[in-house]
Amino acid sequence: MSEIRKHYFLDEHCIIASGRSKRPSAPKAYSDEQVSSKCAFCSGNEDQTPAATAVYKGGMILRDIDEGRIKDWDIRCIPNLYPALSPQTDNGMLSKKPTTKTLKGYGFHEVIIEGPDHGSRIQRFTDSEMLLLMKVYRDRVLHYRSHDGVEYVSLFKNWGKKAGASLEHTHSQLIAIPVMPSTMVKELVSIKQLDHCPYCRIAQNESGGERCIYENDHFIMLAPYFSRVPYEIWIVPKQHIESLSSFNDDMLSYLGDCIRRAVTLLDKAIPGLAYNYMFFQDQDPDYHLNVRIAPVTSIAAGFEMNTGIYINSTSPETAVKHLLENT
Amino acid sequence: MSEIRKHYFLDEHCIIASGRSKRPSAPKAYSDEQVSSKCAFCSGNEDQTPAATAVYKGGMILRDIDEGRIKDWDIRCIPNLYPALSPQTDNGMLSKKPTTKTLKGYGFHEVIIEGPDHGSRIQRFTDSEMLLLMKVYRDRVLHYRSHDGVEYVSLFKNWGKKAGASLEHTHSQLIAIPVMPSTMVKELVSIKQLDHCPYCRIAQNESGGERCIYENDHFIMLAPYFSRVPYEIWIVPKQHIESLSSFNDDMLSYLGDCIRRAVTLLDKAIPGLAYNYMFFQDQDPDYHLNVRIAPVTSIAAGFEMNTGIYINSTSPETAVKHLLENT
Repeated sequence: MSEIRKHYFLDEHCIIASGRSKRPSAPKAYSDEQVSSKCAFCSGNEDQTPAATAVYKGGMILRDIDEGRIKDWDIRCIPNLYPALSPQTDNGMLSKKPTTKTLKGYGFHEVIIEGPDHGSRIQRFTDSEMLLLMKVYRDRVLHYRSHDGVEYVSLFKNWGKKAGASLEHTHSQLIAIPVMPSTMVKELVSIKQLDHCPYCRIAQNESGGERCIYENDHFIMLAPYFSRVPYEIWIVPKQHIESLSSFNDDMLSYLGDCIRRAVTLLDKAIPGLAYNYMFFQDQDPDYHLNVRIAPVTSIAAGFEMNTGIYINSTSPETAVKHLLENT
Repeated sequence: MSEIRKHYFLDEHCIIASGRSKRPSAPKAYSDEQVSSKCAFCSGNEDQTPAATAVYKGGMILRDIDEGRIKDWDIRCIPNLYPALSPQTDNGMLSKKPTTKTLKGYGFHEVIIEGPDHGSRIQRFTDSEMLLLMKVYRDRVLHYRSHDGVEYVSLFKNWGKKAGASLEHTHSQLIAIPVMPSTMVKELVSIKQLDHCPYCRIAQNESGGERCIYENDHFIMLAPYFSRVPYEIWIVPKQHIESLSSFNDDMLSYLGDCIRRAVTLLDKAIPGLAYNYMFFQDQDPDYHLNVRIAPVTSIAAGFEMNTGIYINSTSPETAVKHLLENT
């Protein structure tokens, strides 16, 4: 049973998810070679997971039934076995203190298994595999966004133990929540006070500059001037577009190209690097979708927690030089 | 040369501190037994560090001179060899992009070596050692707060490699910065909209409750209802008091008792646990000082970075039961 709790006096939330402490500990190594027969995400082990909510196979979208599981799939979406939130939860107001406020633990937590093979890595995905993954991202966000009570769908990938991945089989995650996250509220409030879209301006200003890593027809990939962590990368559409739901297949294909390229460059520059990537998007037409890739090379410690200010030991300009060194 | 950079359009900052990438890598283990003759923080190795800015010895406050170092000290404050910010920096506006803003890399970064012995731990500090540490905290914050251009002094302790400590000899740190951190701005804006102090109310409401860990005459130690991480602990003065500078020695002594007790309980419940603790305080009389202890048991990953919402697998109520189990 999870519970979403509001801060004493700030518009911030945390999720108390006691069920998640039962998760198995993370694997010890992330080796391309290691193929575990016990991995529940591997092709053939479908019955070790909850029934899939969506199975992408040969151009079709299917769904597991209780009696059996679909085999030979391309991408498989399953409910997280240790969900942070759950659609069944309805535990009402738990706290009797007037300064505190308890929200329901309502929500959805889904795992997107990006491919059937344990050793697969998105940097080796073909164009069509990458496009399919982007389509799944779009589909699943749209699917959960349309549920009553869902205010935001967080779509992200944790890669590597240091980035919080508890299983090594390549996967993304999606958590649909009944509150608007403070990160998005803060951005939207600031954006609405401007007479222009700051992301449109970032895309224009950074184009061709020392922080630009790559550009294609629809996107710019850059190391942001404001980089919280070493080798942070942002992918920003050149066109003002608020969310994945407005992406056509052509744009999805270009986006997939950017993500694969970013991950490939990072892995070449710092082999085995753990990273998180996150989609920032909203239904509000003032928002401008962006994807942020945050490699894990350091620890946010006391100073960062105290001030919200990150100390980054590698400037984005230096990171770009390193990333593009051997290209 | 460090540089404080403002976010493209939010009132947030990061510090680009390229010099810090030269830091030696963190030690491999945190063993009570291990005594390294090479540790620059150990008594006898004073000449391996920059000259101390303040040396506390037998009730006196001294200062190293270039020709020699003070020996047999109780607590020693030195400039960080790999500072995030530096008083000498004055590199002006580095960026030519109109959407970005560069601040000076001005500031101070100090290490407070809490004792001469490599194996010392604050949970074994005597009352007078603990009181001295609190006095040093108060002195050093006051000292830097009075410098021109300093807007905030962040005082914190990282304990254990997983909490970002790059050296194992017990120490705290202080970073004085020329901007008001977004964490404090956000809190102060919210507090000023209320007709009461939320921390005064927290201290009242949590007193004697299921989240209360300990109380003495001046402080309450609690697991906050809004706990971002498992076993998070807050220490809140019962009296409305904005910063350490207003603490008399009696209050410092009670505060030291709380911090030592918190660290002792955490270490008993989860031996070897890494943690960060941070002082939240301000000169604004509306603020109410509080100390937050954040143990490191999990990783803030994609979801947390995307939403600012932390998933905590142990409720504060459960954590308190565990912490008080054997007391």
